[in-house]
Amino acid sequence: MSKYTLGIDYGTLSGRALLVNVETGEEIASSVYEYPHAVMDECLPSGKKLGMDWALQDPKDYLDVLKNTVPDVIKISGVSPDDIIGVGIDFTACTLLAVKNDGTPLCFLSEYSDEPHAYAKLWKHHAAQKYAVKMNEIAAERNERWLDNYGGKISSEWAFPKVWQVLDEAPEIYAAADKFIEAADWIIWQLTGSETRNACCAGYKAMWNKNTGFPSDEYFKALDPRLEHVVDEKFGRDILPLGKKAGEINEKAAEMTGLKVGTAVAVGVIDAHIFVPAVGISEPGEMLAIMGTSTCHMMMGTKECQVKGICGVVADGIMPGFYGYEAGQGCVGDHFQWFIENCLPKSYYDEAEKAGMNIHKYLRKKCESKKPGESGLVALDWWNGNRSVLVDSDLSGMMIGMTLRTKPEDIYRALIEATAYGTRMIIDTFNSYGVPVKAFYAAGGISQKDPMMMQIYADVIKMPVKIAGSDQGGALGSAIFGAVAAGNKNGGYDDVFDAAKKMGKVKDTVYYPNKENSKIYDRLFEEYKILHDYFGRGENDVMKRLKKISSV
Amino acid sequence: MSKYTLGIDYGTLSGRALLVNVETGEEIASSVYEYPHAVMDECLPSGKKLGMDWALQDPKDYLDVLKNTVPDVIKISGVSPDDIIGVGIDFTACTLLAVKNDGTPLCFLSEYSDEPHAYAKLWKHHAAQKYAVKMNEIAAERNERWLDNYGGKISSEWAFPKVWQVLDEAPEIYAAADKFIEAADWIIWQLTGSETRNACCAGYKAMWNKNTGFPSDEYFKALDPRLEHVVDEKFGRDILPLGKKAGEINEKAAEMTGLKVGTAVAVGVIDAHIFVPAVGISEPGEMLAIMGTSTCHMMMGTKECQVKGICGVVADGIMPGFYGYEAGQGCVGDHFQWFIENCLPKSYYDEAEKAGMNIHKYLRKKCESKKPGESGLVALDWWNGNRSVLVDSDLSGMMIGMTLRTKPEDIYRALIEATAYGTRMIIDTFNSYGVPVKAFYAAGGISQKDPMMMQIYADVIKMPVKIAGSDQGGALGSAIFGAVAAGNKNGGYDDVFDAAKKMGKVKDTVYYPNKENSKIYDRLFEEYKILHDYFGRGENDVMKRLKKISSV
Repeated sequence: MSKYTLGIDYGTLSGRALLVNVETGEEIASSVYEYPHAVMDECLPSGKKLGMDWALQDPKDYLDVLKNTVPDVIKISGVSPDDIIGVGIDFTACTLLAVKNDGTPLCFLSEYSDEPHAYAKLWKHHAAQKYAVKMNEIAAERNERWLDNYGGKISSEWAFPKVWQVLDEAPEIYAAADKFIEAADWIIWQLTGSETRNACCAGYKAMWNKNTGFPSDEYFKALDPRLEHVVDEKFGRDILPLGKKAGEINEKAAEMTGLKVGTAVAVGVIDAHIFVPAVGISEPGEMLAIMGTSTCHMMMGTKECQVKGICGVVADGIMPGFYGYEAGQGCVGDHFQWFIENCLPKSYYDEAEKAGMNIHKYLRKKCESKKPGESGLVALDWWNGNRSVLVDSDLSGMMIGMTLRTKPEDIYRALIEATAYGTRMIIDTFNSYGVPVKAFYAAGGISQKDPMMMQIYADVIKMPVKIAGSDQGGALGSAIFGAVAAGNKNGGYDDVFDAAKKMGKVKDTVYYPNKENSKIYDRLFEEYKILHDYFGRGENDVMKRLKKISSV
Repeated sequence: MSKYTLGIDYGTLSGRALLVNVETGEEIASSVYEYPHAVMDECLPSGKKLGMDWALQDPKDYLDVLKNTVPDVIKISGVSPDDIIGVGIDFTACTLLAVKNDGTPLCFLSEYSDEPHAYAKLWKHHAAQKYAVKMNEIAAERNERWLDNYGGKISSEWAFPKVWQVLDEAPEIYAAADKFIEAADWIIWQLTGSETRNACCAGYKAMWNKNTGFPSDEYFKALDPRLEHVVDEKFGRDILPLGKKAGEINEKAAEMTGLKVGTAVAVGVIDAHIFVPAVGISEPGEMLAIMGTSTCHMMMGTKECQVKGICGVVADGIMPGFYGYEAGQGCVGDHFQWFIENCLPKSYYDEAEKAGMNIHKYLRKKCESKKPGESGLVALDWWNGNRSVLVDSDLSGMMIGMTLRTKPEDIYRALIEATAYGTRMIIDTFNSYGVPVKAFYAAGGISQKDPMMMQIYADVIKMPVKIAGSDQGGALGSAIFGAVAAGNKNGGYDDVFDAAKKMGKVKDTVYYPNKENSKIYDRLFEEYKILHDYFGRGENDVMKRLKKISSV
């Protein structure tokens, strides 16, 4: 009798459940539920206005994902809950809830239902920017060693800037919150009845380190005396590594989902990091780029190196037993969308329509006939700042080489190439800091849809590009962790690497570098590097000065 | 009884005659004739293919302008030819004809009618580039002093590169040509029956200098031994200053045009330089920018300074008695057209249409509500190279500061601002080389149509911008010179400055700098300058390297 696991992938706008055959990795059935409240960035359901850069969610939507999608996949698949041996969860992060001791989110309580700080702060809630700036300043002043594990800078998206914002702006909510918890851990709490915290979220989003723990109470005190004991008072120091079981489906959850009481539930994972097992990566040095509006780069290493400009290095943070490295590019698909919306002339739309093509495909067709370098353009891919390796959100975009003969497709291709150069810059940085990159995988929407871009990446980074085999990679990765939580004796796996090898998958198509193209891209990348350093490393801070002038 | 003069303005695609009241400058009647052969840049009338970058015209079209427009304005105006006291001519330059001793263009002779080199080489014939490159190299090697009068570089558009191309590619045509002559001088020859040459064309396009004459025979010999005596053999050293009479309408011309025999004909002028009297400029230090697809800057000075990167300084070249300085920007209106054609999204067209506005007007409306610097963008206006002050056609465009919030109108405005910074760079260079710029006038299509751009210019250069009063400024300027050729005793003027004061005109609208805006533009111009020097003066020759890579 076949066994199955369930992966539940919580994205920014919806949750998806996927039922997977444990032995073969076959994807049996899936179901998606869109959050009715979506992202609240202008007002609460009551109509109460939110400030600039706020982004909230209603945790009720997360529960509704369970109530809708899990029974749905059970029904569609016809699989008996007896044969579903495990559940894995991945979630956007840091998406942070303020809850009571029993796990009830404050926003579920009527007295707080009209209080913005009582809702879940979504990962892209950026209103805590000033707290992040202060945290970085004070950490640098105090020479906090953990800062180097995050490329020298923490982000406003992370847990403690968000917590500090609550304390500072709504101390009564801070007081009322018995705990702050990642949504990934909160949903597992709802499934198992017990509070756990995972190493992936804690490590990448809450400055937790396997060896040294959280930053010291002294550091938090230096931020604000009221924060001195924030870790013990509002978090907890018991952090579970990935690949472990967090608990089992309890009666309440069984009723809600149709799963069997006692089904294993895996420790939660961030929705990006979960892609690594989904493509079957089981070795250090194999980099995975998850390419969508932005790109996350994931890689395991055998030692903890403080690579310049990475997003973080966390022990057991991607797969157990290894140091998980994360880097990022803030603007990838967003580039192309910006271009299409703001720069693409009417005539191209008309021609694409006549040709019956979607506009991206039409542009790609126009680009494909051109040789690397033919356009004479080079761009810096910083329309949304630079996440790695410069870690500087005040940088902006640049393009050089335009003439009166420059065509829209030239600009489009230059933007694609710029993101490829950005990736090569990250790879080169890893290599030079002692964390060698030996292979390159791509997942995410772009990897599935844009062969030209994948070929350009192969040519620029001079490595074959392997493509994720599933277009539900997040949920598949969670199902793999679900299989490991169940363990061998229940029909799953004891080892996540074994599980990944069996259940993870890449496509047959591999993009191999074209030597002639690589030669030209080597020359163009040299130009990119010069411009990257000139504008990005302080020689000419024009981008920052222009931002300053523009904000007057 | 009122007296009148006729200005005939030969442009790239048509010729225009304008009849002007000598006392008031009132424009009485005008008539335009489009050249039937327009610009031949692909093939001869026979279908014979032309090479890359060729641009020819048929001089028959020039005669047809006389035959059609002059009788036409006489008829429309009802003015008696007896009261038309003078004629002035301005022409594109260097537009060069190969002719026999009697003035017959070689292309009029049946044996040469299918020979490309026998036709008029239009100013924008760029196929002589390699000859210009060699001329510059050899001039630099020989340390030719005249080179500094042209900003250190001569252009492929000029006379001798064109002549050398004829000699090198078609020695039989070179041999058959008794003379090479500017179209301006040729048309005057057709009107008066005698060959003359004007200081404006000779000075700006044939390296002639009032004090030192043409470059030496030794220089020409160093180019090619067969060119040693080119000046004496094919040109002539008798150069007339502007403001003089070239001759009088002869019988043949009277028959062709309806003008009276004996009517004074002025020495010819280049179609850009002619704008200076048309706006009534009569002082040194008053800069005129003629703004169209590109911009020409004209100014008189009291001494000969070798200003870095100008197009030329020529004694009597703009107005008699002064040194005429010319500088240029290669891409102004062309920028905006490029942008509209290659970067403007469909939605903007749709909205403009809905609003019933033309697209430039719609964009301007979108820009107007923004403050200087608000977009955070700065561009280098080198989409077509840099004419002044870097004199480098291998430079290309650059834009910096783009974010995901950058809108099309931001880019559009940044391109406008970039051309204003380019103008300020030219003004600053004149000032720093001892040729002070005291006032600023704008003529040409853009000056009439784009108040926002004129205001931006005023804010950037921190001087009032006065606007040409006539939209037929070229022909008006020629009519002014026609009045001077006629002289006071015939009802005209003896002095061109008097004539310009009476007949030239500016609009009542003057654009005054807004102090607040100028403060911001000062900061943005600082950024422009840093980028200008970094990319333009050799610190990072990425633009040249990219062009090289692109042309492989």
